[in-house]
Amino acid sequence: MDLAAGILARNTRAVARAISLVENRDPQAKALIDGLYRHCGRASIVGITGSPGSGKSTLTDRIIARERAAGRTVAVIAVDPSSPFTGGAILGDRLRMQDHATDPGVFIRSMASRGSLGGLAVAAGDAVRVLDAAGYDTLLIETIGVGQTEVDVVELADLVLLVLMPGTGDEIQALKAGVMEIGDFYVINKDDLPGADKLRLEVEYVLSLSQPSVGRKAGRVLMTGALRNTGIDELCAAIRDRTAEDRADGSLDERRRRRIERRLDAILRARIHEVMDTHLEFSRQLTGWVDRIERNETGPYALIDQQVELLLSNRFVHGSSKEEQ
Amino acid sequence: MDLAAGILARNTRAVARAISLVENRDPQAKALIDGLYRHCGRASIVGITGSPGSGKSTLTDRIIARERAAGRTVAVIAVDPSSPFTGGAILGDRLRMQDHATDPGVFIRSMASRGSLGGLAVAAGDAVRVLDAAGYDTLLIETIGVGQTEVDVVELADLVLLVLMPGTGDEIQALKAGVMEIGDFYVINKDDLPGADKLRLEVEYVLSLSQPSVGRKAGRVLMTGALRNTGIDELCAAIRDRTAEDRADGSLDERRRRRIERRLDAILRARIHEVMDTHLEFSRQLTGWVDRIERNETGPYALIDQQVELLLSNRFVHGSSKEEQ
Repeated sequence: MDLAAGILARNTRAVARAISLVENRDPQAKALIDGLYRHCGRASIVGITGSPGSGKSTLTDRIIARERAAGRTVAVIAVDPSSPFTGGAILGDRLRMQDHATDPGVFIRSMASRGSLGGLAVAAGDAVRVLDAAGYDTLLIETIGVGQTEVDVVELADLVLLVLMPGTGDEIQALKAGVMEIGDFYVINKDDLPGADKLRLEVEYVLSLSQPSVGRKAGRVLMTGALRNTGIDELCAAIRDRTAEDRADGSLDERRRRRIERRLDAILRARIHEVMDTHLEFSRQLTGWVDRIERNETGPYALIDQQVELLLSNRFVHGSSKEEQ
Repeated sequence: MDLAAGILARNTRAVARAISLVENRDPQAKALIDGLYRHCGRASIVGITGSPGSGKSTLTDRIIARERAAGRTVAVIAVDPSSPFTGGAILGDRLRMQDHATDPGVFIRSMASRGSLGGLAVAAGDAVRVLDAAGYDTLLIETIGVGQTEVDVVELADLVLLVLMPGTGDEIQALKAGVMEIGDFYVINKDDLPGADKLRLEVEYVLSLSQPSVGRKAGRVLMTGALRNTGIDELCAAIRDRTAEDRADGSLDERRRRRIERRLDAILRARIHEVMDTHLEFSRQLTGWVDRIERNETGPYALIDQQVELLLSNRFVHGSSKEEQ
């Protein structure tokens, strides 16, 4: 396969084309991704999340520069799930990263949600596979905001940075509400703002109360000033050390196994939906179904149960086999 | 049915119990919800979303008070999708709403995500059905944050308020990125803060550039000061007028039809997942499947295709029919 060979040779055009294929759910993407699995596992995959305004993009930019200075290649996937309608990520501050645009050791790509729930996490997961197989040393997955989609995306990472900033009362509320549990490192950015030390103490306090989830180590708090370029060396060193430790003690393997489980689940859901649309003509029948519900002839749950029965019945299977012949 | 009768009589305990059933995906919830459909359609359903810190909860509180003063009953569903892990919504500022706790004309309920993607939107949709059938005049669905889950939840509403606040550069970025398209009313809250008029002009400018989506009217900007209790009468009047207009010209019907379509889709996905778990023993087989992928015997896409084929094959159907007998 030409495209796979191009990816393995880290040809930028091949990599970009493969990511477009997974984004558009092109049928040929499946075999491509399955084939790349055996070439994956070398990259260090770092998720970066946090509230809008916390300075994630600047921080990402600094990490890229630091990694490049240390001779490592970097790929960035910037995920924007807040744009389910327009289908296009308008990521103004991504422009800053264009400093790296001419550096062949850096690959940057934005991905936006294209409607269906969960679809973005599947596509982003495939993109990670492509970039890992292409041999980039460090993969950064940056998301916008904190919510279910962001959590799904960040779970693709070996190590997660939750970026916080002082002076926003929201942070602690979010932390308490469970978002805390997704972070490995809690990066307090804009650490020259008033309240930075207070936030640090608060986060450390909340962390001391909570149990790290299975296979994870206790969360750690780090301070950065991305704009002033302070604390970045320490952050990158901490990422490297933690990754090495996780590799050595088997917890990285454990995480990656759980990640494959989640991917199987996500791929299964997406596949089943295709089956429904192909075999039950879901989209075409929808209008008639809504009519029946509006006329009170049936309820949505009863109707769906009936359709699923139909899908699983012999009658249906014979019909579909014939069509496919 | 006792429970259904209790709901229709607006018995608070029956309503609360029904919502617990849908939240826990209790099997008896399906027939209950299907049966309630014919009693729905009278309530005015208002979605309230926006960034954390924009004052949504205070605004909701004010709207409740205003509606009660006008003799209308109100039910509130406060949805918190940011808490997928702990499964419990810690909604500190919900406490403020407890002013209404002893008023039998007000029902308030928090719902948090319980793991699976999309599950919250299905449960929230069922809860709306329960509250509508119970005869509450105004339903408020308040979400935390702006993301895919929030969009799904807000789509349950007849009319959506997107709450913004001055002085956060994020707002306009979010607006440009497409979140704009989910709002009917753009409520600039904390309108005594510097920059309120500038934000108003910016939002109006962005609105003037964008086309309202099918069945929706052009977005409108309103100013409120929820804490100072200003602009609330005007907001409630605007909600009432717009709802009456949408009822008269058929666009409310059109929205509700599209909402049933989305619900069918969401219920189908949830149902199919149940089928997978029952028939393919998805959860039990997962470990073995991950082993095979790690040994490079198969890729995730090939494996899922194979399992789906198995599900749809005669062999499987016979096996399962026998088990069920």
